[in-house]
Amino acid sequence: MTLREQSADLPATSALEHVLLTPGPTPIHPEAMKALTRVMLGHMDPEVFKMNSAIQHDLRVMYGTEPEAFTALLAGTGSLGMEAGFANLVEKGDDILVCTNGSFGRRMAEMAARYGANVRLVTAPLGEAINPADVAAHLDGVQMVAVVHGETSTGVLNPVPEIAEIVRHSGALLTVDAVTTAGMEPFYMQDWEVDYAYTGAQKCLSAPPGLAPIAVSERAFARYAARKTPTPLWYCDFEGLRDYWIEHTYHHTIPVNLHFAFEAALRAALEEGLPNRQQRVRQMGRAIVTSLAPLGFSHYVKREQDRLPTVLALRLPEGFDDAGVRAELRKREISVTGGLGPTAGVIWRLGLMGESARPAPYRALMMALEDILGADGLMRRYEAALEAQGL
Amino acid sequence: MTLREQSADLPATSALEHVLLTPGPTPIHPEAMKALTRVMLGHMDPEVFKMNSAIQHDLRVMYGTEPEAFTALLAGTGSLGMEAGFANLVEKGDDILVCTNGSFGRRMAEMAARYGANVRLVTAPLGEAINPADVAAHLDGVQMVAVVHGETSTGVLNPVPEIAEIVRHSGALLTVDAVTTAGMEPFYMQDWEVDYAYTGAQKCLSAPPGLAPIAVSERAFARYAARKTPTPLWYCDFEGLRDYWIEHTYHHTIPVNLHFAFEAALRAALEEGLPNRQQRVRQMGRAIVTSLAPLGFSHYVKREQDRLPTVLALRLPEGFDDAGVRAELRKREISVTGGLGPTAGVIWRLGLMGESARPAPYRALMMALEDILGADGLMRRYEAALEAQGL
Repeated sequence: MTLREQSADLPATSALEHVLLTPGPTPIHPEAMKALTRVMLGHMDPEVFKMNSAIQHDLRVMYGTEPEAFTALLAGTGSLGMEAGFANLVEKGDDILVCTNGSFGRRMAEMAARYGANVRLVTAPLGEAINPADVAAHLDGVQMVAVVHGETSTGVLNPVPEIAEIVRHSGALLTVDAVTTAGMEPFYMQDWEVDYAYTGAQKCLSAPPGLAPIAVSERAFARYAARKTPTPLWYCDFEGLRDYWIEHTYHHTIPVNLHFAFEAALRAALEEGLPNRQQRVRQMGRAIVTSLAPLGFSHYVKREQDRLPTVLALRLPEGFDDAGVRAELRKREISVTGGLGPTAGVIWRLGLMGESARPAPYRALMMALEDILGADGLMRRYEAALEAQGL
Repeated sequence: MTLREQSADLPATSALEHVLLTPGPTPIHPEAMKALTRVMLGHMDPEVFKMNSAIQHDLRVMYGTEPEAFTALLAGTGSLGMEAGFANLVEKGDDILVCTNGSFGRRMAEMAARYGANVRLVTAPLGEAINPADVAAHLDGVQMVAVVHGETSTGVLNPVPEIAEIVRHSGALLTVDAVTTAGMEPFYMQDWEVDYAYTGAQKCLSAPPGLAPIAVSERAFARYAARKTPTPLWYCDFEGLRDYWIEHTYHHTIPVNLHFAFEAALRAALEEGLPNRQQRVRQMGRAIVTSLAPLGFSHYVKREQDRLPTVLALRLPEGFDDAGVRAELRKREISVTGGLGPTAGVIWRLGLMGESARPAPYRALMMALEDILGADGLMRRYEAALEAQGL
């Protein structure tokens, strides 16, 4: 096959619209999309450093950090944010307590182990939140506690404020995966005394994927500075990042276009206001559940306070053809994500982050489902539910 | 300062054009820029997997690999490509020979050491290429040899084919930094028996920064598979990458927009033809040197065969105001890069990679220099030199 033929065979540009309802990536914010093609500058350009400083400032606001916390964008996706925390803050032989009630908690445990930690696990059944009392019971002698705030794999919100309250008195560092929460859910790094947090640009901020915004407390930076051995991970070494972001010396090439887009998306989020965004995601969640409940969809997560507003995990109706319906949706340029591992075929995980937590993209879903399932009245119900929520 | 005021203060979008003559990033290829804003898809979408397969195919062509070599894009910049090689192919206690005749060779040595290697160095004076005989002299018992093909920091091309010929008989793996060469300089991974190579998307392909294209020989993959301990670097673990790129199971979120752009840029490069690109960069280099020589600029690298065509290192004329002239250029939206460390103030490093190796961007430079330096006739000389080169 020649290159030309291959090219003709590639349909990746065929659709003019695509409705992304996945738990990430999200539809890109229009301002971010515009910024993506700004005139290209080098990573050492004074205007780029100025933009980076503005991003650092806005990240402190988003994460609710102390004024001197170090914030930055890693040149990679959310998992690199996770990795950078363990790489910089764990030394061989450290005891690390990891809360695992889903795929991303398990990923944390695996990474911590790879960097030489003795990993202790606190678990909870799938679909249930971590019990803070379990953390308290295993805290003795631990150097770090790690927890996923919003467990994307099951739609569970872990009680980070309560866990933080317990960890605070122990002297351990607290690492929080804020991938599906920061920018859309309450997150108060300074008040809670979180030491390291990260997310992915493509989640609650609806920027393009490829950047991991991180925040490091002063305490965590001091712990890093006291390391006995350098971290293996040169690419995300806190010192190298600080050299670039603060001292403006070369470390590695940053993805400038993604920075342009990220800056625009984060600015838009702060201008909308974090409380308004928290309200929007809740209103959208209620409208969706109200609309789909008569078809037999129900909350997968039993306890209301354990439900992650930004990833709506819905148990599918009895006998529902998960794969078949999602394939039909994909033909209509709508992406919906099912369960992972044990919840495959059991749930859908509907993304309500950033630009997906809007009436329009879910209108496309409801319209398609009404047709595919022959669910008369679904659209009418959705419009009424939106109105009831003031949307 | 309010967010609004900060925003008004940010000039990053002010210019409508900017001429990037740095040794990376390069001006983005127009097809790549267009692709960057394609309709967004998820990282598990069938169309994305199809695109990724086409990228893998085209990368095999670009690197000149064996048919079964594993190719992929890492979600990070070139330095992550460097790091992934050492992370996956080095185990604690391995003896690694690193060729260091500039900043990027030294970076390789530092990374190898962080992953526990015993590092031996083969060096050469700045501005000179590594002598293959020095590699031969230190090869005994070594598990891997690492060399930078084009040393961006000094504009030196290291003799990779000759080094490869020596390493081939030793059983050691050969890692080559192809950051300023692959896609624009001859690179024959299979013929030379290179085991691991990487570059950055923003270099010779003029795609946006944020991706590191890698190629792994079957022999290197087998060495990886025989590791006694897992690599610390989960994010770039070859197994995890293969799961995603070949088996299509989730590993981490990829930067889909950057993949769109990269695919278009690589396709454009292969359609232009690698030999044509190699010719273009040489013609441009000669035209630039012919034009600037009468002003006192001269090759920093003495021996012709040691000169890296894609990064033209020019010694500045006696008494030349490096910082002042570059600041003047920057005011006119032209970015030129000086030396690094010991060559700061001594050289300029003019990028001739991808879209910067074209008459138009250097026309902007010549016009500005004629004005800033009062160098009458420079533009006329440049046009004549282009014509002489058939450009």
